[in-house]
Amino acid sequence: MISQEAHFTFLDTGHIATPKGWQAGVAASEIRYRGRNDVALLVSERPCTAAALFTTNKVKAAPVLYDQALLERNSTGIQAVVINSGIANACTGEPGLAATTATAENSEKILSLPKDSVFVMSTGVIGMQLPVEKLLLGIKKAAQALDSANGPAAARAIMTTDTHPKDCALQVLLPSGGQIQLGGMAKGAGMIHPNMATLLSLITTDAVVNPTFLHSALQSAADRSFHCISIDGDTSTNDTLLVLANGCSGVEISDSADKKAFIEGLTLVCQRLAQEIVRDGEGATRFITIEVCGALNDGAARQAGMTIAKSSLVKTALFGADPNWGRVVCALGYSGVELEPERVILHFGGMKVFEHGLPLDFDEKAAHNLLNMPEVLIEADLGLGEGKATIWTCDFSYEYVKINAEYRT
Amino acid sequence: MISQEAHFTFLDTGHIATPKGWQAGVAASEIRYRGRNDVALLVSERPCTAAALFTTNKVKAAPVLYDQALLERNSTGIQAVVINSGIANACTGEPGLAATTATAENSEKILSLPKDSVFVMSTGVIGMQLPVEKLLLGIKKAAQALDSANGPAAARAIMTTDTHPKDCALQVLLPSGGQIQLGGMAKGAGMIHPNMATLLSLITTDAVVNPTFLHSALQSAADRSFHCISIDGDTSTNDTLLVLANGCSGVEISDSADKKAFIEGLTLVCQRLAQEIVRDGEGATRFITIEVCGALNDGAARQAGMTIAKSSLVKTALFGADPNWGRVVCALGYSGVELEPERVILHFGGMKVFEHGLPLDFDEKAAHNLLNMPEVLIEADLGLGEGKATIWTCDFSYEYVKINAEYRT
Repeated sequence: MISQEAHFTFLDTGHIATPKGWQAGVAASEIRYRGRNDVALLVSERPCTAAALFTTNKVKAAPVLYDQALLERNSTGIQAVVINSGIANACTGEPGLAATTATAENSEKILSLPKDSVFVMSTGVIGMQLPVEKLLLGIKKAAQALDSANGPAAARAIMTTDTHPKDCALQVLLPSGGQIQLGGMAKGAGMIHPNMATLLSLITTDAVVNPTFLHSALQSAADRSFHCISIDGDTSTNDTLLVLANGCSGVEISDSADKKAFIEGLTLVCQRLAQEIVRDGEGATRFITIEVCGALNDGAARQAGMTIAKSSLVKTALFGADPNWGRVVCALGYSGVELEPERVILHFGGMKVFEHGLPLDFDEKAAHNLLNMPEVLIEADLGLGEGKATIWTCDFSYEYVKINAEYRT
Repeated sequence: MISQEAHFTFLDTGHIATPKGWQAGVAASEIRYRGRNDVALLVSERPCTAAALFTTNKVKAAPVLYDQALLERNSTGIQAVVINSGIANACTGEPGLAATTATAENSEKILSLPKDSVFVMSTGVIGMQLPVEKLLLGIKKAAQALDSANGPAAARAIMTTDTHPKDCALQVLLPSGGQIQLGGMAKGAGMIHPNMATLLSLITTDAVVNPTFLHSALQSAADRSFHCISIDGDTSTNDTLLVLANGCSGVEISDSADKKAFIEGLTLVCQRLAQEIVRDGEGATRFITIEVCGALNDGAARQAGMTIAKSSLVKTALFGADPNWGRVVCALGYSGVELEPERVILHFGGMKVFEHGLPLDFDEKAAHNLLNMPEVLIEADLGLGEGKATIWTCDFSYEYVKINAEYRT
């Protein structure tokens, strides 16, 4: 066997159920929304190895608590995921946890699956109890509609304030010659901040992967995707990133070149979904990429970039396309990373605006025009080391305030 | 001598030059603003002991670097402070530092004061060089106008985006029977976040205070005032809190009861100024007090309260008077402090909205009305210990976005 380079191809019409052995079903349970699908069911024809990252918020939604415990009990026999939108089942106490448990156990019966084989995810308003009976009726309907073509409908069913569904599929030709597929879907447009960054994200694959490697691959992929985005700096109660590998391709990820390619593929899928979430950020008018290099290490680069991405002053300036280098330099200064201001070099849209601790005499109007675009690049070279990171965020608009200030009805 | 309780009285028309032996002068140097005073000079008739807290931002303005070094050389022989508005002298490199040094040294000559006796503070735009010659002409004019009645004019001269001046004076009757006065002024309406919280704040007193105690008193006062406010979470390059004690009252702060009273008085002045800064927060429509109790310690209480105060989702909800307890609970959850959600009790405007890990069935309309006020109280009891803190912040409005998104002209 000749070792070759890995090849990655995003499939134009790919989705969460594109990898072999996956089916999706959706239904309208009407637990909160009217006249739209609000339940998505993902089912694998074989048991999966699973890995997940959950919110670091100390206030965790019932499904997060349930899934964390389930993953500890069983990381190799998962076969389905039930997701509902409309109600997050967070801040719901013991009744909320009982509702999630009932959802999982009844789903296992409906799908004729063994005990401890179903994950549950919920997204929507906090503090409202989940009407389990209604939800189970929806799950039954979704189970009758299972089909490998239903991935796009699933991505749509899990939306809340999202303005468009977010899904993709990637084909990976491994260096060893085998071919696998990854599918992904995500939702989330507010309360977006790392650890975990998105409310809900699910990734499927047909590769054969052991759970230990799957977990480390997910951590690595998240560090270069979901942990690199910020919309408003709030870490939610429900954030979950879950990956399930059902092995239906028969291709095992075992040698180190294939492992590297798998991590790379998983990272590409995570980045695509994370970027879609930022593009759909509440009230966002610009998609902003922040490239930090020259930090002492990658962690410091990420911390510096995330501090810029979180600054309300930077985000409002970018809404106004104001080339306000001072706010970016100021954010670097309080980011907590090692910094020597006179070594920092800053570019806005490719134009150098700051060097040697001083602003350059740049053309403000030209810089304004470079920032007055749907996609904007900010580059910060700290000039100290080899650490680098790429962060994605959006601007802070009137519309953000409007969406989040409106009195709930 | 009979030991008695301390008495504190804010003086209706008090200001920075109210304590004995202080004079202020103002002038228009026209370094950036047109047709308004932009230079303030504070001069003591005797050398002062000094203590200061400076920004923790690694990008420090030239006057911050100068004052830090000066304070290390001389903490007992300071006699004047020069403050200019319009130009912050930050991100100005070596020329900026030379400008501050020239300002200090020439001011010493103009005022016939010894070397190393003048502090310099600057506030305004970042990245612009200070025209020293013009500034010195202004300082000369201000020196000719020195008068103990000019405190209010000084508070006005240091304003930038502030909509009103911030100053006060406090009379303290000490337990030992002596009487001293404290004067204060501050400016700042954006880039407001602790360490240091305000752009510039100066406090004078006529008490006799040794520099070591003065520093610890200032740290203690700041921890209950400037370190407890947040407007937008950005820590500026120029933040400075300076206190000068000239001893002209002849009253020495020596016994422990008097020391406690001095700290209390200094805290009251700092709190008054810090609260005025929040009330003047860019685009603020509400003044919000967050009382946290039941934390494991005071530091944890402050961290929890500041996390709530910084949350864009909480601040936009408060702009809309939305009783969105979920966002407050969520912020507590990611604040990083020890938390057991089922022990948390939350009140909005005195109305209990959350307990035992669950929202109460409260009257949403009544809660909305309680939040739809110019002054709003949020109380969070973490139910774990004795730690408590009070935080002051403001809401996040359309106007905040407008002020900070406008393209600089």
